[in-house]
Amino acid sequence: MRPASELINTDFKLGVLGGGQLGKMLGLAAANWHLPLYFLDASRDLPAGALAAWFSEGNFADYNDVYSFGKDKDTLTIEIEHVNTDALRRLSAEGVVVHPDPDKLDIIKDKGLQKLFYLEKNLPTTPFKLYDNHQAVLDAVEAGEWQYPFVQKLRTAGYDGKGVVIIRSAAHLDNLLDGECLIEPCAAIEKELAVIVARNKKGEIAVYPAVEMDFNPDANLVERLLCPARIDPAIEAAAKKLAVETIEAFDLCGLLAVELFLTPDGELLINEVAPRPHNSGHHTIDSCYTSQFEQHLRSILNLPLGSTVMKCPSVMVNLLGAEGSNGTAVYEGLEACLALPGVKLHLYGKANTKPFRKMGHATILADTLEEAMDIAQKVQQTLRIVSMD
Amino acid sequence: MRPASELINTDFKLGVLGGGQLGKMLGLAAANWHLPLYFLDASRDLPAGALAAWFSEGNFADYNDVYSFGKDKDTLTIEIEHVNTDALRRLSAEGVVVHPDPDKLDIIKDKGLQKLFYLEKNLPTTPFKLYDNHQAVLDAVEAGEWQYPFVQKLRTAGYDGKGVVIIRSAAHLDNLLDGECLIEPCAAIEKELAVIVARNKKGEIAVYPAVEMDFNPDANLVERLLCPARIDPAIEAAAKKLAVETIEAFDLCGLLAVELFLTPDGELLINEVAPRPHNSGHHTIDSCYTSQFEQHLRSILNLPLGSTVMKCPSVMVNLLGAEGSNGTAVYEGLEACLALPGVKLHLYGKANTKPFRKMGHATILADTLEEAMDIAQKVQQTLRIVSMD
Repeated sequence: MRPASELINTDFKLGVLGGGQLGKMLGLAAANWHLPLYFLDASRDLPAGALAAWFSEGNFADYNDVYSFGKDKDTLTIEIEHVNTDALRRLSAEGVVVHPDPDKLDIIKDKGLQKLFYLEKNLPTTPFKLYDNHQAVLDAVEAGEWQYPFVQKLRTAGYDGKGVVIIRSAAHLDNLLDGECLIEPCAAIEKELAVIVARNKKGEIAVYPAVEMDFNPDANLVERLLCPARIDPAIEAAAKKLAVETIEAFDLCGLLAVELFLTPDGELLINEVAPRPHNSGHHTIDSCYTSQFEQHLRSILNLPLGSTVMKCPSVMVNLLGAEGSNGTAVYEGLEACLALPGVKLHLYGKANTKPFRKMGHATILADTLEEAMDIAQKVQQTLRIVSMD
Repeated sequence: MRPASELINTDFKLGVLGGGQLGKMLGLAAANWHLPLYFLDASRDLPAGALAAWFSEGNFADYNDVYSFGKDKDTLTIEIEHVNTDALRRLSAEGVVVHPDPDKLDIIKDKGLQKLFYLEKNLPTTPFKLYDNHQAVLDAVEAGEWQYPFVQKLRTAGYDGKGVVIIRSAAHLDNLLDGECLIEPCAAIEKELAVIVARNKKGEIAVYPAVEMDFNPDANLVERLLCPARIDPAIEAAAKKLAVETIEAFDLCGLLAVELFLTPDGELLINEVAPRPHNSGHHTIDSCYTSQFEQHLRSILNLPLGSTVMKCPSVMVNLLGAEGSNGTAVYEGLEACLALPGVKLHLYGKANTKPFRKMGHATILADTLEEAMDIAQKVQQTLRIVSMD
């Protein structure tokens, strides 16, 4: 890794696989330092494209596209897991700095391997079993191995709630997805939490305050996220400790978002992780000393990590495309939404909306979490992303 | 003005005259809403160029360049005062929304007219007299009209401390600048303050907390800026009230940065104003609910104004090119600077440094102003922008 003084105003090239909203927001953080980012994704029309100084159109899952894109870069990172790790391994062997480590990415991309990793490392997670296809699951259910409700997760296709189904009764068995998968019990969950932790090559670690996630059950997407989480300080400390143990177990540089289940008896279980900026850290842009995006840059560039201190309580709401709307996006109620106090609007610039598509997010800042929650509810009632057609 | 829902994901075009660091930071604020900005300035290599979706190379002081640039825009604004207002008047007459108003800009651009405006509107300012050239000033001094020390300001050439000299004794008379100018006494000043106020077409007004400015006497540039200002709450309230009266007197939409002198007996005098985002508001990016740049967008687009609440105390330091260094900029001490807690670094991407050139700024966030001041001093001792050559 080149020293810090050689990152700015030089020919230093940081490449990012993926040009969606996470890439866009990473680019905005880098722009504060006037550090240009180079993106690889299907089309410059994607969110990161509008601001990218360099955008290579290609497929981040394709070996040749990734290799060609990466070979003149100093450092490479990702904003999505589903990239070609074989090309990343070759690039790493050829001297390009790659974070997160491609081998660890292969583990994380496969939810089966990810769960096996937690077992191996004695990290707490829900019990599970792996199956080759949906017939194998049906056989296991028939043999009485699983009680309803249970959860099926495809090992590799999952993203934003896709590839995950909850089977509540025998009547739902038709919903089982086909493919290599894992089954786990539908754990009794008090709350879902997330902790973002960062680590650089020097081994420095910085951990953000825990956040509490509320899900939209229809879309299986985070609907709002509260920071600070309404949990006991001892639970908060345990959650942060577990996040630190997890990034150390993976020996990763960069960010790791650790999603946790808090059980009714106060146990913390790892649900899954993401080795990149994450939806559960969007509030940090407006509410913490260092945004998760700046922290990701600091950690992959082996710079000192930034303070994770919270400036004020916040609620983050995802702005999803309205049900039943497909087509050119129109932001109804935008003016009324901007009139609400403390609303920070982040729109991703996706030209077309579809039901439950993540079109943006709003972070609501207030003196107290309760006040921010009230205003967040108004934002959700006010702003509707519909189609013009 | 088109309604808010027609600003995003449509063909709405917001043009900005000037592509320096203020333009860049305005572009970053607009990027949160995915609102593309169109810039006019000499070269795409300027700070705003790297992120601009559209950058027209041209001269913002040239009638034809401004007219050609502006005629297909919906709304126009500025990041520098010294633009061609005749072209803006024509564009305004042809239906383009222009903020700030070109007539008011003509008053503000000319420090003589600006002072006459304050007299006319009964807004408090230091006494002054206007002169046609330096000989006329010499004659007045010889006639005993001015006591040392006094200040000479060129009426139209001033920018970033240029066009301003302090004449401390007869020995300094050789430093007098030639050209239309104003002379004012070197007022006894307790503190220099600045208040940024925003106003939209509906007449809504939002005012930021006052800031206290410390100058670098060698460069006549703000060296650091403290928020909150260390002043009595009554003075703070009076400063905010004066800022509101000033923007109302000008009947402006957009931001107005009002620089004030606080005299030893508690009087507030307007020094000068800027109808645009301003150096004295850079801390708002990191320390207030709404940054000055987002507020400028809200106000010129006639959107509801954002909350000006402070999230935490801050000190802003300008990062100036080191004395004696001219050439390709190198950021010495960058890593040590990033290791200091709460340091938010903003680099403008100017490839070449020169003595006292504004190359960036750092905002230091902390629990208390005193702590932020300590860290700011370390930033100033740590980061040096020198030339590679």
